[in-house]
Amino acid sequence: MTKITKAACIGGGVIGGAWAARFLLAGIDVNMFDPHPEAARIVGEVLANAARASKLLTMAPLPKKGTLTFRNSIHEAVEGAEWIQESVPERLDLKRNVITQIDAAAHPHALIGSSTSGLLPSDLQRDMAHPDRLFVAHPYNPVYLLPLVELVGGKQTTPETIARAMTAVEQIGMKGVVIQKEIEAFVGDRLLEALWREALWLIQDDICDTETLDNVMRYSFGMRWAQMGLFETYRIAGGEAGMRHFLAQFGPCLKWPWTKFTDVVDLTDELVEKIGAQSDAQAAGRSIRELERIRDENLVGIMQALKGGNGGAGWGAGKLLADFEARLWADAEKPEADLGKAQPLRIIDTRVNAAWVDYNGHMTEHRYLQVFGDTSDGLLRLIGVDLDYVKNGHSYYTVETHIRHLGEARLGEALYSTCQILSVDEKRLQIFSTIYNADTNVAIATAEQMMLHVDSKVGKSVPALPDVLERVTAIAEAHAGLARPDGVGRSVGQKR
Amino acid sequence: MTKITKAACIGGGVIGGAWAARFLLAGIDVNMFDPHPEAARIVGEVLANAARASKLLTMAPLPKKGTLTFRNSIHEAVEGAEWIQESVPERLDLKRNVITQIDAAAHPHALIGSSTSGLLPSDLQRDMAHPDRLFVAHPYNPVYLLPLVELVGGKQTTPETIARAMTAVEQIGMKGVVIQKEIEAFVGDRLLEALWREALWLIQDDICDTETLDNVMRYSFGMRWAQMGLFETYRIAGGEAGMRHFLAQFGPCLKWPWTKFTDVVDLTDELVEKIGAQSDAQAAGRSIRELERIRDENLVGIMQALKGGNGGAGWGAGKLLADFEARLWADAEKPEADLGKAQPLRIIDTRVNAAWVDYNGHMTEHRYLQVFGDTSDGLLRLIGVDLDYVKNGHSYYTVETHIRHLGEARLGEALYSTCQILSVDEKRLQIFSTIYNADTNVAIATAEQMMLHVDSKVGKSVPALPDVLERVTAIAEAHAGLARPDGVGRSVGQKR
Repeated sequence: MTKITKAACIGGGVIGGAWAARFLLAGIDVNMFDPHPEAARIVGEVLANAARASKLLTMAPLPKKGTLTFRNSIHEAVEGAEWIQESVPERLDLKRNVITQIDAAAHPHALIGSSTSGLLPSDLQRDMAHPDRLFVAHPYNPVYLLPLVELVGGKQTTPETIARAMTAVEQIGMKGVVIQKEIEAFVGDRLLEALWREALWLIQDDICDTETLDNVMRYSFGMRWAQMGLFETYRIAGGEAGMRHFLAQFGPCLKWPWTKFTDVVDLTDELVEKIGAQSDAQAAGRSIRELERIRDENLVGIMQALKGGNGGAGWGAGKLLADFEARLWADAEKPEADLGKAQPLRIIDTRVNAAWVDYNGHMTEHRYLQVFGDTSDGLLRLIGVDLDYVKNGHSYYTVETHIRHLGEARLGEALYSTCQILSVDEKRLQIFSTIYNADTNVAIATAEQMMLHVDSKVGKSVPALPDVLERVTAIAEAHAGLARPDGVGRSVGQKR
Repeated sequence: MTKITKAACIGGGVIGGAWAARFLLAGIDVNMFDPHPEAARIVGEVLANAARASKLLTMAPLPKKGTLTFRNSIHEAVEGAEWIQESVPERLDLKRNVITQIDAAAHPHALIGSSTSGLLPSDLQRDMAHPDRLFVAHPYNPVYLLPLVELVGGKQTTPETIARAMTAVEQIGMKGVVIQKEIEAFVGDRLLEALWREALWLIQDDICDTETLDNVMRYSFGMRWAQMGLFETYRIAGGEAGMRHFLAQFGPCLKWPWTKFTDVVDLTDELVEKIGAQSDAQAAGRSIRELERIRDENLVGIMQALKGGNGGAGWGAGKLLADFEARLWADAEKPEADLGKAQPLRIIDTRVNAAWVDYNGHMTEHRYLQVFGDTSDGLLRLIGVDLDYVKNGHSYYTVETHIRHLGEARLGEALYSTCQILSVDEKRLQIFSTIYNADTNVAIATAEQMMLHVDSKVGKSVPALPDVLERVTAIAEAHAGLARPDGVGRSVGQKR
C-alpha cells in the first residue's frame, strides 16, 4: 500500500487533537473539522505536548511536519483525505450521523476510523453507502505517546480494510492490534472497567485511600504490565510446570470469598466527594499540566528503556519505537546537497530528555557522549555505513575521544550537533563534532574522535569498502579547506 | 529503631527465597528453614537471579552480603532473628500452625511477617502468645525487583508493629504500603483478580487470544500504571474540570451493558487447554529462564528510567531506588585504609546492563563515560564532595575528558574501575581512570579528566574548601610516586 499523505480529523478534542498530532508528526497533512469555538486552542495545546514528547522520545529524523488546516464542514475536511478519523462525543446517534456524512463526502476508497471506546462498529456502519471501509481505531491517552490502537471491524467491514488500517497505523508509529470479534468496549476498556469497579469498592469501604491504591499498582504489577501482559507474566510465574499447571492451581481461587465484590458500586455523591478529596491530597498541589509533563517524561523514559530490552534487540513498546526509528532513518532524505559543501554537516537535532539530567536539572556528563555517538552514527549512515553494512561484518569503532565542556544544557533545551571530517585514510577516520544550544547557537561541547574501520567478525582493522571510502573522501575533500576547529589535537590540561 | 541484622525465613520457595535474597543483599544474615528436599537448589536459583538483577539495578555500594544458613527446625531458625518471615503454602491451618510455632520459639520482640496473599492476619494470629507483632507482609513477584510490600495488621496487631515493619522494609529497598482494614486478598490481589476474571472471559469467548490481550495491556495502560496508578491517571484525564467532574461523567458507564461480565468464568479443561496453547504460541519457543531474564532486565530499565523522572528528582519506584542508593552511599564504609596507599583507588564495581548494549550486545560508547563519571563521583565522595557539599553550592565540574577504548564489554560482564590522581591544585583536579574486565583484570578503557572546582551558584571556578583540599592532596601525595599511566597527556590520533 502506498503511504498516507493526507488525513482528516472530524472532532478535535483531546483524542482528535492527538490523532492530528500523530499524523502531522509523521509528515501527513491534516484537515480538521470541529465546530467547538475553542477547537483551535485545545488542538494547539495537544499539538504542543505531542511535539515536545516526540522530541524527547526519539532522535530519529521525523519527516517534515504535515500542515494542519481547519475546515468549515465535514464535506470540506474529507476532501482528498485517504484516512478520516472520527473523534466526536460518545453517542451512537451522533457518531452514526457523522460517519454517514463522512461516507457520503469521502472518496470511496478512503479509510474511515472511529475513535469510539465502546460502540459497536456494526452499529456505526449501518447507514453507510460504503460500510466495508469503516473500522474502530481506539487509541489510549496520551495518544501521542501510548502506541496502542485497537482495530475492530463490524459485520460489513472487509478484511482488506483491517489490513490497510494495520499498515496505516504503523506509518504513524502506533501498534495496531486486531480484535477478532466486536463487543462493547472491546478488550482494553473491558479490563480497565473490571479493575476500576474493584478499585471503587476498595475506596468506598475504606480499605485504603486513592494514593495507597495507586502505590500498590505502580510499585508492583504496573511495572510488570509495562513490558509483559497478564498471560506472559503468569506463564513465568507458572515456572517449568507450565501454563496449564498454573491455571489448574489458580482455578479454585476464582471461587474464593472475595469474588463477591463483583456487584457494581453505587457512585453516590458521597463516594465522588471522598475520591475527589483523596485525589486532591494525593496530588499535593501539583497541577494537571505538571502531572502531564511528569507522566509524559516517564512514558518516554520507559519506552526508551524498553528499546534496550531483550539484550539490546528491543522489547514491546521499545521494539516498536526502534522499528519506527529504523524506518525513519531509512526514509530520511540524505542531505546530499550538503555533502559537497565546505561546512560542517548538521547531524542531530534533539532535546534534553528527563532521563538525561541530574537532580540539578543539568545534562549528565555521559549524555554528551551519547549525542556525540549519535552524531558519529549519523555521519556513518551518510557515508553508507548503515545497518546492512554492519550486519555484513564491517563497521567503524571509536578508539579515542577527546571532549571539551564549554557550557551547560538543561532539561528540555533544544540541541543540535555538527560534524567535520578532519582526516581520513583507508582505515582511519578522524572527526570533530560540536553540540550547540539550538536557541542561541552557542557551542556547549566539542568532541574530537578517532574511528577505526574493522572487520567485526575477526575484530581486526581492515580498509573500508570502496563505496564508503569514496563517499567519506568526498566529504573530507569538501571539508579540507575549513579552518581546524579550536581544540583539535589538544590533550587534557594542555595550556592554550 | 536499630537496623535488622538477622532475619529468619520459614519456607523457601520462590517467595521465601526472594525474601532471603532481599535480606542477604542488604547485609542481613538469614536463617532458612524449609523441609522440602530441593529447598537449597530452589533458593540458590532465586539468589542467583536476585544477585544478577541487583548488580544491574544499582551501582551503589551494597553492604557486605549477609550469610545464609539452612536450619533443621523452626526453633533453630528463629534464634536471634529480629524479623521472621513466613512463606509456607497458602493454607490457613498450615500457616497458623507454623506462625504459632514461630511465636513460641522467637524472641518476644521479634517481628513476624506472613507472605500470605489472601488470608486475614486476625485468623493467623489467633493462637499466638504475642499476637501484637504479627503482620502480613505481602510482596509481588519477582520479589527481588518489584519493591511493593502490602503491610496489613490484624485485630491484635499494634500500630507500633506496623511502624517497625515500615522501617524494616525500607532497609531492604522495598516500599511498604499500609492497608487500613484487613480483607481477604488485601488491595493488589483484589485488583488483579478483577482484571483476571475479565481476561478469562475475553479468551473464553474468542474476542481475542492471549497475545493480543497482553499486547493491549503492555502497549497502553501498563505503561501508565508503571509510573502513576489508576486515580492519578484519571485525575489527568479529567483535566482542569477536576476529578469530581471526571467521576460524574464516568458514573453512567458503570451501568453500561458490558458490566454483565462480572460472573465468574468456569475454568474448564477446555479453557485451560485453550489458554495453554495460545500461551505456547505467544512464547514462540522462549524458555521460562529466557523470559525471566528479559522481564528482569526490563524492570531494571524501567526503574532506572523512573530514577530520572520528575526532572531528575526521581518518581515512583525510581525515586525509591534513588533514596535507597543515597542511604547506601551514606552508609558505605569509606576505604580510609586505601586512601594513603600508593595505588590507584578501586571505585566502582558494576555489571553491563541490558540498557547499555547495542544490538550486537556490546556496551555502547557513552556508557563507558557513564562508568567513568560514576568513578569520578566516587572519588569526589571520598574527598568529601558529597550531596551536602553540592547542595551548599560547591562542586567539581568536568571540563575535559580523553577516552581510549582498548577492548570491549558485553552484556552481563562484570567491570570495575580504578582512579589515580595525576595532579591537584586549589581549583583543578586531574585524574586518570581505568575500566577493567573484573574476570580477566584486563583494561578495556581509560579516561583522563580535568575537573574544575566551581561555585555553582555564580558559575565560576573558586578554590575548593580546606577540608576537601586536604583530603584530595593526601591522596595525590600517596599517588605521586606512581608511574604515569600509558596514555596520559595524549591527544587524539597522536603517534605512540
